[in-house]
Amino acid sequence: MSAAVSALQKARAAYTPKLPKALRNGAAAKAITGEPTAAAGDVEKIKALFTENFGSPMVTFEAAAAAAAVSEFNAGVILSGGQAPGGHNVIAGLYDGLKSLNKNNKLYGFLKGPDGLVKNEYIELTDEIIDAYRNTGGFDMIGSGRTKLEKVEQFEAGKKHCEALNIKALVIVGGDDSNTNACLLAEYYKKTNAGIRVVGCPKTIDGDLKNEYIEASFGFDTACRVYSELIGNIGRDANSAKKYWHFIKLMGRSASHIALECALQTQPNATIISEEVAEKKTTLAEIVDYLASIVADRAANGMNFGVALIPEGLVEFIPEVKALIAELNDLLAKEEAAFGAITEADEKIAFLLNKLSADKAAVYASLPRTIQLQLCLDRDPHGNVQVSLIETEKMLAEMVKTKLASWKAEGKYNGKFSTQTHFFGYEGRCAAPSNFDADYCYSLGYTAAALLGANVTGYMSSVRNTMLSADEWIAGGIPITMMMNMERRHGEDKPVIKKALVELDGAPFKFFASKREEWAKTTSYVYPGPIQYFGPSEVCDLCTKTLTLEQSK
Amino acid sequence: MSAAVSALQKARAAYTPKLPKALRNGAAAKAITGEPTAAAGDVEKIKALFTENFGSPMVTFEAAAAAAAVSEFNAGVILSGGQAPGGHNVIAGLYDGLKSLNKNNKLYGFLKGPDGLVKNEYIELTDEIIDAYRNTGGFDMIGSGRTKLEKVEQFEAGKKHCEALNIKALVIVGGDDSNTNACLLAEYYKKTNAGIRVVGCPKTIDGDLKNEYIEASFGFDTACRVYSELIGNIGRDANSAKKYWHFIKLMGRSASHIALECALQTQPNATIISEEVAEKKTTLAEIVDYLASIVADRAANGMNFGVALIPEGLVEFIPEVKALIAELNDLLAKEEAAFGAITEADEKIAFLLNKLSADKAAVYASLPRTIQLQLCLDRDPHGNVQVSLIETEKMLAEMVKTKLASWKAEGKYNGKFSTQTHFFGYEGRCAAPSNFDADYCYSLGYTAAALLGANVTGYMSSVRNTMLSADEWIAGGIPITMMMNMERRHGEDKPVIKKALVELDGAPFKFFASKREEWAKTTSYVYPGPIQYFGPSEVCDLCTKTLTLEQSK
Repeated sequence: MSAAVSALQKARAAYTPKLPKALRNGAAAKAITGEPTAAAGDVEKIKALFTENFGSPMVTFEAAAAAAAVSEFNAGVILSGGQAPGGHNVIAGLYDGLKSLNKNNKLYGFLKGPDGLVKNEYIELTDEIIDAYRNTGGFDMIGSGRTKLEKVEQFEAGKKHCEALNIKALVIVGGDDSNTNACLLAEYYKKTNAGIRVVGCPKTIDGDLKNEYIEASFGFDTACRVYSELIGNIGRDANSAKKYWHFIKLMGRSASHIALECALQTQPNATIISEEVAEKKTTLAEIVDYLASIVADRAANGMNFGVALIPEGLVEFIPEVKALIAELNDLLAKEEAAFGAITEADEKIAFLLNKLSADKAAVYASLPRTIQLQLCLDRDPHGNVQVSLIETEKMLAEMVKTKLASWKAEGKYNGKFSTQTHFFGYEGRCAAPSNFDADYCYSLGYTAAALLGANVTGYMSSVRNTMLSADEWIAGGIPITMMMNMERRHGEDKPVIKKALVELDGAPFKFFASKREEWAKTTSYVYPGPIQYFGPSEVCDLCTKTLTLEQSK
Repeated sequence: MSAAVSALQKARAAYTPKLPKALRNGAAAKAITGEPTAAAGDVEKIKALFTENFGSPMVTFEAAAAAAAVSEFNAGVILSGGQAPGGHNVIAGLYDGLKSLNKNNKLYGFLKGPDGLVKNEYIELTDEIIDAYRNTGGFDMIGSGRTKLEKVEQFEAGKKHCEALNIKALVIVGGDDSNTNACLLAEYYKKTNAGIRVVGCPKTIDGDLKNEYIEASFGFDTACRVYSELIGNIGRDANSAKKYWHFIKLMGRSASHIALECALQTQPNATIISEEVAEKKTTLAEIVDYLASIVADRAANGMNFGVALIPEGLVEFIPEVKALIAELNDLLAKEEAAFGAITEADEKIAFLLNKLSADKAAVYASLPRTIQLQLCLDRDPHGNVQVSLIETEKMLAEMVKTKLASWKAEGKYNGKFSTQTHFFGYEGRCAAPSNFDADYCYSLGYTAAALLGANVTGYMSSVRNTMLSADEWIAGGIPITMMMNMERRHGEDKPVIKKALVELDGAPFKFFASKREEWAKTTSYVYPGPIQYFGPSEVCDLCTKTLTLEQSK
């Protein structure tokens, strides 16, 4: 931590996160086990792959009458994948929980993600370190990394390093893939009698690690609030200046949960939801038409301004664009020499238009020139098109402009269309957690300690009933196998935790869909403002609109 | 105002802004006048241009023993130019102040800026309207516009419309240009015995309307806090992921006050200050070298990440780039036909390189291709290069990358350099005002009412001593002529309010300069977090670092 600390950070350090009632006397709570569980799909295959852990019962904690004595053990914690607000509070909760089990317990933080376990890079976490990071954003306490823990050599190296530190339990904080791997690790360590328990904590900023038992990915609330603050400010600006359309891209590669939540919070004029595009097989031209129609309708009512939200992963959800990219990848690989020999940009484009199959060529031809170039020039080390570099917000703004120009020529539109584009992602991933996330993350970490105290393995820490006050929260553990099914990944059937995409028949999307026409025509922007930590409860202790709608259905 | 209102907005509506002690019994305060004033420069010329108003004394208010009776009058208010947080509170303060003078006073809001006065578009502001906008961001209550009030026909039209509404006083909320024009209007109305007083309120988000008497432009605090929240979050992300350099461009066309204030709040690794570049005649190559050196030094210490801040107006402050742009404008005008006939982008660039004078050609050749194209393709209706469209943050990121690649080839650098770029402007201009801005803006508006009550014209509302608690604030009025000098604008000598650029011998810059080497080498990021409205005073009632350093010198 840097020497200089902001006034807010100083004040916020004093905040004591709320815990579920069951854990208020410490993590040595009473573990109530339920019936044996199955899997989310492909039950027999999952059962065959996880012979040790399959079928474990769900665990729910109840407050113990008196603190049970738990014998001393050391634990290790790993942050895996991209940052999400509240990661430090997971670690703080885990630390406090472990100390409540036995004050001699030690917690080691493996550095820079799973690599730290494999390469034996770690620090011992102390009161001083933990206190410096309570209620702060970021993952900088121990760092994170994207290495996948999936090979036996890695498991064995980890085992050796744990043994040296007398570590009997690992907590892996990560997304769907990391938790899948935590389950594989748990299985391996149980099978090999390594004597190391493994527990996962659910984290993805995109909000796609979610199901009946995992009500929210931590950090999702905070990140969406930061983005919504900015979208609200931009909406206010649009409505004040009355001269710009703002096209705003929001983080979220695979799921549109962030775009949907931000739309519910701010009521912009247009929001594209990737899952709906995929489901309805919407074409790019149809998306452009949809946006241009909203612009034209507002212009007809004297409003040459607006706000449109676009999820980061959109292009890969548009079936025809996805197909185009796949064909481009093949084509560029096959024609590498011939294509590489062309020096002029226009000729490169002409070459591709000539070689692509007719329907793909038509889609390619419809793209703005900058995107056409990006698709053939910016390729990753494997020669593939770099979808993440496509500036979808600019692409759509430009295509809508072209469409409006053609409508103007036809006399169907007579407005002004000036755009500003934005992309919000890094602005929110490391924000200091909202009260909700501070409490939720701390509780997830504390619950992980309780699961370790209860001697289970292959579980994910779960805190439910989060719509209600923390008093009513239910702390427990879910066997990771219970959330798994088999999916085809890179040509192989693999056990994975099902990614939770936006459900088109879910309450959040249905509410949005029922309102979007009105929001398109009117200027009904809501200005959520910045996250508040100290004010009235109705301002500071909100949970997401998504969760509110899901839980009240 | 839209029907749906956020929880924060609801709670915030109840906030009562603080007033200077002198105004707590109402706007009918005792006006203490000082000695006659002069001008900031070119005294004789200013005196000759403003025969009516030149030399007016400064006014300071003291609390009146008993509320004086002020006869009834109506007033009009105009928002001019770009949005700044707190504009609605200026109007609310003015409204409350006018009502305190005489409860029958009416306030009319002219719509969409100065145009509203000229075209007679207005609304009467009522309790209901004012209450709905207290402590909110944006200018949407009455809108704003960029029309310049400078012609006699406009003044006459305004007079006619004011007479119809029995308006005896106008308050113009705007930047340096708008206040200059407010002064011209005041002069004209006094000279023609129109019976309409004119008072200005100082607003520029860029913070460049500032002097001994105008301690801060309103909204500057709020906007800088929003940007600093985001920069802090990005710094935390950079320090967690440890793999990106973030190049962040910040709003501020002419002055770098925003970049400097944000640097003081967040302690990034590099910040370019336009005024220093101009003063030292820094070349573009030197800026690139400076940034690349910081990247390389950090890489040598294992830190392949960082944060760099770049002011929006930078390119026009680099003498050689400014000269290049001027020559390009001339050249493109002269060679329009020949240049327009070229279809290939590369040939266009070659054409320009061939025609530009040698030193300009060298600068042009050093630019990334996308910027070369932008400079010759994106031109405004007058054929001029559109400097505001230049993505300076991307340009510098790309040039630093090229420089580092050459150093790598020479064995002088062995790091990784991946970048993310951002531009923050619209995200902050319409944020709900911080406590400081809510109080300051309300006080400015209330003081404007007091000035109208005191029957003066050609003054700017002034609230000073703002480093201290509102109790100690000094409310008063400054003759606008006092801040003027003559400057060459579009080939003519014009009376203008001196723009306040960052002073290189001022305390804020000197503090920054004394720290920047340390901030470059270390990771000393500060994370200010979001604006807080309800928490402890040391978190909620901060004023800017710029002001703190200026006032404590």
